[in-house]
Amino acid sequence: MVDQEMKRLVNAGFIEKAQRCRPRLKSSVKAPLRIVAISSKGDTAEIQEKSDGRMLPRYSLGKGESLCLDFGTHYVGYVTLKFNSVGSPQDAPAFLRLKFAEVPGEILDDSGDYHGWISRGWIQEEFIHLDVLPAEVRLPRRYAFRYLEILALDTSKKWKLVVEEAKLSAVSAADPEAVFPFHTQDKLLKDIDRVSVRTLANCMQDVFEDGPKRDRRLWIGDLRLQALANYETFRDYKLVKRCLYLFAGLTRDDGRVGACVFTEPDYIVDDTFFFDYSLFFVPVLYDYYMESGDEDTLKELWPCAKRQIELASQEFGTTHVVREMEANDCFLDWKAGLDKQAGAQAVYIYCVRRGACLARILGCTDEASRLEREAEEKAAAAMKYLWDGTKGMFISGRDRQISYASQVWMVLAEVVKGKEARELLNRLDEEKPEMGMVTPYMNHHYVEALLLCGEEKKALDYIKYYWGGMVEGGADTFWELYNPENREESPYGSRIVNSYCHAWSCTPAFLLRKIEKIF
Amino acid sequence: MVDQEMKRLVNAGFIEKAQRCRPRLKSSVKAPLRIVAISSKGDTAEIQEKSDGRMLPRYSLGKGESLCLDFGTHYVGYVTLKFNSVGSPQDAPAFLRLKFAEVPGEILDDSGDYHGWISRGWIQEEFIHLDVLPAEVRLPRRYAFRYLEILALDTSKKWKLVVEEAKLSAVSAADPEAVFPFHTQDKLLKDIDRVSVRTLANCMQDVFEDGPKRDRRLWIGDLRLQALANYETFRDYKLVKRCLYLFAGLTRDDGRVGACVFTEPDYIVDDTFFFDYSLFFVPVLYDYYMESGDEDTLKELWPCAKRQIELASQEFGTTHVVREMEANDCFLDWKAGLDKQAGAQAVYIYCVRRGACLARILGCTDEASRLEREAEEKAAAAMKYLWDGTKGMFISGRDRQISYASQVWMVLAEVVKGKEARELLNRLDEEKPEMGMVTPYMNHHYVEALLLCGEEKKALDYIKYYWGGMVEGGADTFWELYNPENREESPYGSRIVNSYCHAWSCTPAFLLRKIEKIF
Repeated sequence: MVDQEMKRLVNAGFIEKAQRCRPRLKSSVKAPLRIVAISSKGDTAEIQEKSDGRMLPRYSLGKGESLCLDFGTHYVGYVTLKFNSVGSPQDAPAFLRLKFAEVPGEILDDSGDYHGWISRGWIQEEFIHLDVLPAEVRLPRRYAFRYLEILALDTSKKWKLVVEEAKLSAVSAADPEAVFPFHTQDKLLKDIDRVSVRTLANCMQDVFEDGPKRDRRLWIGDLRLQALANYETFRDYKLVKRCLYLFAGLTRDDGRVGACVFTEPDYIVDDTFFFDYSLFFVPVLYDYYMESGDEDTLKELWPCAKRQIELASQEFGTTHVVREMEANDCFLDWKAGLDKQAGAQAVYIYCVRRGACLARILGCTDEASRLEREAEEKAAAAMKYLWDGTKGMFISGRDRQISYASQVWMVLAEVVKGKEARELLNRLDEEKPEMGMVTPYMNHHYVEALLLCGEEKKALDYIKYYWGGMVEGGADTFWELYNPENREESPYGSRIVNSYCHAWSCTPAFLLRKIEKIF
Repeated sequence: MVDQEMKRLVNAGFIEKAQRCRPRLKSSVKAPLRIVAISSKGDTAEIQEKSDGRMLPRYSLGKGESLCLDFGTHYVGYVTLKFNSVGSPQDAPAFLRLKFAEVPGEILDDSGDYHGWISRGWIQEEFIHLDVLPAEVRLPRRYAFRYLEILALDTSKKWKLVVEEAKLSAVSAADPEAVFPFHTQDKLLKDIDRVSVRTLANCMQDVFEDGPKRDRRLWIGDLRLQALANYETFRDYKLVKRCLYLFAGLTRDDGRVGACVFTEPDYIVDDTFFFDYSLFFVPVLYDYYMESGDEDTLKELWPCAKRQIELASQEFGTTHVVREMEANDCFLDWKAGLDKQAGAQAVYIYCVRRGACLARILGCTDEASRLEREAEEKAAAAMKYLWDGTKGMFISGRDRQISYASQVWMVLAEVVKGKEARELLNRLDEEKPEMGMVTPYMNHHYVEALLLCGEEKKALDYIKYYWGGMVEGGADTFWELYNPENREESPYGSRIVNSYCHAWSCTPAFLLRKIEKIF
């Protein structure tokens, strides 16, 4: 939900600590590897190599002509282009369109056709006039892309445009080319791991961003999964710490953690709140402490974590079942029509359990016991009111909706465990309720649920099916949205604004290593 | 004609002299006077005032909303805009379109509809993304405009765009607000004079530009008329001297002066040559000397002037009639289908006469006599071969075309004089041949021809009819093209690329003072 009337609370000490953990971005210079032609072939984009990238200055573009540069893989960074003219003296401004594309399909899409509900401003397309050539243009904006199309919208009848050089300064708080130990002979798994690591690295900027193409903000739902993948790879504890302090230092006046935080022009918490996202402060802190052992941070941020549980607990009635939620009150997944009640109940239990652990670690034994009881009480209520014994499924909302999200989160919350949980997930797999999963974010939780009940083989197969499907579809980084049955699906009205390097999709690097430890 | 194979000759000494005459541009800061709404009403654009310009920061723009700023009159300069947002934190880039318009109609035109033959790059329209608000944007390009439309192509559902400030730094080598003595009680004549002076001033930049919106180059045809208006107003001899040295210092290897010169990134002569334009070096030098008395410049540049006559003389056959010309070999006017032969013959005679005067001033009496004979010989040939005694008109080309341009230039060349010339112009006025005049440039010559045969009253009436028509049509500066019978006429395929502050249209400031001196 959006709270435009909210009052904001800033903890200056926390912000200062966040500031001290600010990363120094690494940059590396890249040139286009190839010049390609991208055309549509049925539903997919076909790429044909025209020449080596070093041939770039040999091309000249007249009105309506274009060049598509392929930088070889997905990067986040700043572009400098050197332009010149050939023919008669330049008797009119060069008028160019630049299109930056994470995936080839974006080159084919026409931004004029976009009529979706999120801002068309996210489409990575620039229109540029150059009055005087030669000119070196250092574009001020950051782009996330692999392909760059340069179209001469107009030159004049007397001269043509030459792109003498294209240079990308790729930036990240991590090294996108880094390789971390992961032992497998399986080519697809190796590729999935590599793509995961690049996805994570390209989202590691001034904060853990959700998507370097679109949003470019610190969302706590994404942060939670990025941190898990980061612990298995880059182990950049400082960047997680920075993000924890930003969320704790920028809250609503009642202490509630927002769904996301802006870092420019100033640090400011957004006015969007999700039931699950605020609560996720607890497991992010829990995971961080378990990985880093950083007790000072735990001690300092524990009150903020506790406060999220307190605030969430107010959403429960006398039956210990959370109130029914509007679609926008709790996130869980982008799936349209998904009822959030059961999922919210489960997320709460999941977070309270981790809160209890933290309380115990901190020596607050009363608090720990209270939270343990709280979790059990809510779990019992879930079984009493949200479990349909006949169907053997959790139901959600007044329409008793059966969804993947509800079952998965109830397993993760350990409302059902072991054999029962395994059977539930098997039933889910057999019955495939229509209310499925659309984001890699929700699919991650499905795999975690499988792992939690010992279904490592199924988890591995599912990773190969789901994330492997993106790799086989040519992904250099994992996409914000992927529905194996409808690749064009977008909650925004068009895939042209989808993000194709998205934080919440980077978790195979974590999941695969978790499975590796089990085997 | 275009000579892409040309070899260029640079006279470094001349360029250095031109460089020393480089003007220091004056700048003055302007704010929008009004916020207006421009709508179409039949063929014309209707302007409604919405509020005072100072109300600007009170507006906020959501997706698809726009503001149109009216700076009160035509300016040439650089724009700085301060943007901010209202509502929730800015969760998407602001995506704006800026449209700069010299006349209200340009705000209504859609650049997407332009399919003319000159570059669409001239359309003063920018597309800008702003990732972080507030932002102060100093646009790097120079614009020529009175109206600036700011359209929010997209914001997001959560915030709107505010334009906190719009600032224009107007530039000119002269003072566009300057007023020069001109005694009349006639409101329309006063307005015509004021608009002329502003047109001239706004074209006086680093050189005498032809149009600050489009072309922005030093064309010798425009220079000739600008210099005349300048002598009656700003009297900036140095800027004329600079332009003369640029043309003389940047020629083809045979010494031929080009039709125009580029000043950025380097001084370079274009590969376009017109028979009349190369010859105009002679009268520009003549007028400059007569006004300034600068003998050093005359001496130094006389060889260049003489060379233009020599080269042009090679285009004549044994009959002393200039060869027939392709449309692009000689300019005269933009009128489609205009045959150039008779006009070219007359321009040659006109220029040779001035060359003879210069030779005499320089004491080259043999040369002067030779040139005087040359002019008479060519004038005689014109009467013999290009005069149709039955029709009482000059004809041009194998189709014996009768045009305004041919008659006007024959009068200016004094091939016919006094009563005969007066009768010729009267016949022209009665018969109104279909091959008329489309540019203020050609109309200027028509008025000069009237003045040359003592038709001051007619000249004055014509100025009121022609340039007055633009003033009554709302002109702040005079337009590149104006056909009283077809205001939308454009040689470029659409009025959207027409220039509405154009050097060759600024001459009433000269013509009116010439008439004033006579009365």
